[in-house]
Amino acid sequence: MLLLAHPRPTSYCHALAERIGEQLIGLGHEVRSHDLYAERFDPILTTYESHTSGEEIESVLAREEDPTIALHREELRQAEGLAVVHPNWWGMPPAILTGWINRIVVPGVAYRLEDATGYPEPLAPIQDLLVVNTSDTTDEREETLYKDPLASIWGRCVAPYLGGPRVTRRVLRPVTDSSDEQRAAWIDEVGTLAADTFGAVS
Amino acid sequence: MLLLAHPRPTSYCHALAERIGEQLIGLGHEVRSHDLYAERFDPILTTYESHTSGEEIESVLAREEDPTIALHREELRQAEGLAVVHPNWWGMPPAILTGWINRIVVPGVAYRLEDATGYPEPLAPIQDLLVVNTSDTTDEREETLYKDPLASIWGRCVAPYLGGPRVTRRVLRPVTDSSDEQRAAWIDEVGTLAADTFGAVS
Repeated sequence: MLLLAHPRPTSYCHALAERIGEQLIGLGHEVRSHDLYAERFDPILTTYESHTSGEEIESVLAREEDPTIALHREELRQAEGLAVVHPNWWGMPPAILTGWINRIVVPGVAYRLEDATGYPEPLAPIQDLLVVNTSDTTDEREETLYKDPLASIWGRCVAPYLGGPRVTRRVLRPVTDSSDEQRAAWIDEVGTLAADTFGAVS
Repeated sequence: MLLLAHPRPTSYCHALAERIGEQLIGLGHEVRSHDLYAERFDPILTTYESHTSGEEIESVLAREEDPTIALHREELRQAEGLAVVHPNWWGMPPAILTGWINRIVVPGVAYRLEDATGYPEPLAPIQDLLVVNTSDTTDEREETLYKDPLASIWGRCVAPYLGGPRVTRRVLRPVTDSSDEQRAAWIDEVGTLAADTFGAVS
């Protein structure tokens, strides 16, 4: 499953995601690819989705009426790997992808919780999570000032609820004002990284 | 300015925000209060809002047609303080509030950037930022496992673009299954914290 979150159809994130998709298809993977902006994905977790107790929430979610939401949940259930491409906005994914996590990585789909404060039992364990981010922050400022919340969000907060996949992350920076040569080189690098991460279908 | 992000109108976050609002009004503050779910705030940063260069983006944003977005930006321009109340979802605010940051804390409103990789010049410096979060994670697990990305998001990533306010944060946990007595005590505590943070209007 491949997720892309960037508001401009001509964005560099789009070029990166396209290369990842091509690479994985070339290796024999069946790639379910989603440009969340193009799909107008609705990121607002609804009131009825926000209940917390285990069995209740699963039965509520099973009656999902939005076909896009139902499709994404079904695809996550089936996915063996997940690749996400997005810019770093305020140490987070864009809201449209934040909301994808809110609405798709839910009990009964990705995991089950015995109680609200417990540890997750994985339902749809994925093997590998590849995160590709673009940023205009320098490495030094990220490390000393912002502390890179995105690393913890994907690697520590979300991944355990996806079954504890291996997490591979590459941050490309600074993207604004980078040369055409640099951008082409990064696209090649990310394509290779995707191939190494997910491998060939055996 | 007071922001609330929770999908259930009967949520504990609502009770906390209500107390903060009452407390601040009692101290003489003019409180602009927003229940983002009740307002159906649209969190999706648009294509035209996503340009990066300074003067271009400011002139684009000045032509904002969504009255809610224009209102929030104007209120942030005028705000002396900001209080936010929301649950910790995956180390982030709910998407509706993530998107508020994406769309309201923008160049020409909150700050100005000379270049994409530079440091922000504050335009609407707020003095104090109060963050109140609810969570079902224990302190120990937050510290050792998740690493509390929200602390960095508000304190390190967002606050510098709001003019570098003093940041006060209180995390209430675990909320699920907490007693009525505990909840009432937390509400009192948060009310006092809001009073101490923002003080009386002189």
